[in-house]
Amino acid sequence: MPSSSSIRLTAVPGLPLISPGDDLPRVIANALRAARIPLADCDVVVVAQKIVSKAEGRYIDLASITPSVEAESLAAETLKDPRHVQAILDESRRVVRRRPNALVVEHRLGFVMANAGIDQSNIDPNAAIDPALLLPEDPDASAERLRSELSDSFSVKIAVIVSDSFGRPFRLGAVGVALGAAGIPALIDMRGVPDLTGRVLRATEVAFADEIASAASLLMGQADEGRPVVVLQGLTWHAPHRPAAALLRRPDEDMFR
Amino acid sequence: MPSSSSIRLTAVPGLPLISPGDDLPRVIANALRAARIPLADCDVVVVAQKIVSKAEGRYIDLASITPSVEAESLAAETLKDPRHVQAILDESRRVVRRRPNALVVEHRLGFVMANAGIDQSNIDPNAAIDPALLLPEDPDASAERLRSELSDSFSVKIAVIVSDSFGRPFRLGAVGVALGAAGIPALIDMRGVPDLTGRVLRATEVAFADEIASAASLLMGQADEGRPVVVLQGLTWHAPHRPAAALLRRPDEDMFR
Repeated sequence: MPSSSSIRLTAVPGLPLISPGDDLPRVIANALRAARIPLADCDVVVVAQKIVSKAEGRYIDLASITPSVEAESLAAETLKDPRHVQAILDESRRVVRRRPNALVVEHRLGFVMANAGIDQSNIDPNAAIDPALLLPEDPDASAERLRSELSDSFSVKIAVIVSDSFGRPFRLGAVGVALGAAGIPALIDMRGVPDLTGRVLRATEVAFADEIASAASLLMGQADEGRPVVVLQGLTWHAPHRPAAALLRRPDEDMFR
Repeated sequence: MPSSSSIRLTAVPGLPLISPGDDLPRVIANALRAARIPLADCDVVVVAQKIVSKAEGRYIDLASITPSVEAESLAAETLKDPRHVQAILDESRRVVRRRPNALVVEHRLGFVMANAGIDQSNIDPNAAIDPALLLPEDPDASAERLRSELSDSFSVKIAVIVSDSFGRPFRLGAVGVALGAAGIPALIDMRGVPDLTGRVLRATEVAFADEIASAASLLMGQADEGRPVVVLQGLTWHAPHRPAAALLRRPDEDMFR
């Protein structure tokens, strides 16, 4: 269970816009050094999915897509661009919910999310092609690469979370969630931990990495790409490391899919 | 949109166990002063629902409840205590999902949550009666009282969030959420805000108070009542204040209810 009594989150200033092929760990390390934010053991570096995808070159050109009959039909139902819908279907296992202006899918990685995370905002609208950005191929692996290289660069053992922002059933507004995690327990199982009165807790698993992503989201904001990296310092934990994939509920155990 | 570049969260030490009738704002103010955590304008005090409910005397005695036929039937389906199920039904508008070991309801306040938030953990198991704790009668009003009295006590303008921890569809693990909020925009509407390239964002509403509750949850832990108050310092915002009730999706606009 967490035992920190104080934590600090800092948005890393001065990061350049990220392009395909950029050495993201080096770019982040340079920005941290320039801002005099030395990493220490157990620091958590939260990196927005968008710049991870950009560095990994996860662009597709919507202009080059020919929508299927299924995509055309679904586009009419959801009032979306058929090429966009085709790109969403290509990244998904199945459609979970559809209605005008909403298309919730199960992404091939297991995330239940709107539009398979395929976002056109923050991309140059004047380009000759119509680019869209996919999620990283394997966000836990992206987190692990960043963790390994940033840890080496600062000679410490840090954790990394690749974060995104998801809408939710029942409640309005998006919140930060973890798509990828390395060096940290993304999910903490507290079942069997006794409480203050000695009674064993009924539940409870804690989505530790999602809570960290939400905390970081308070500083990242939503409307620009200016602060896509946040460092969390002072947090401690006593649970085995688990990737963000551990946060996914199995479809057959999900009452709402 | 948020413009802070660094925030700090601190768990307030030394809070006593809370009992019905306790003057919670005074207890929290005393603990803050003893810990030399002076509140400043725009600080956010996050208070766990459990101690708000206790101070408000929101106990019921499960031993005194006679379950209805409906509660008996639902208890058999969900493998729960029929008196517990009756207490859940008494606090709910309707059952949203049921299965063995799970009962998700729409609470009378609109929250879609397990067991209507009626929890037996952390309560003395040796008591002659079988007490359970309900949510605060009106968590936004509870937050507003705490905001008003703590602001007066420190001669500053602070915000207060009454937090709880909810499970979610699709993803494992509980995360912090806001049941009540005062002095802060619980939900921020960023639709129409231009991004770095000048393109107007498609979406996006941000569940600001839920993200704060999740951040605070990192320090509160789950297994004890020892750190039910967390102070968040350094956060700024530029949006109108809205209570936590603004976070509730209308049932007829919810694709998953």
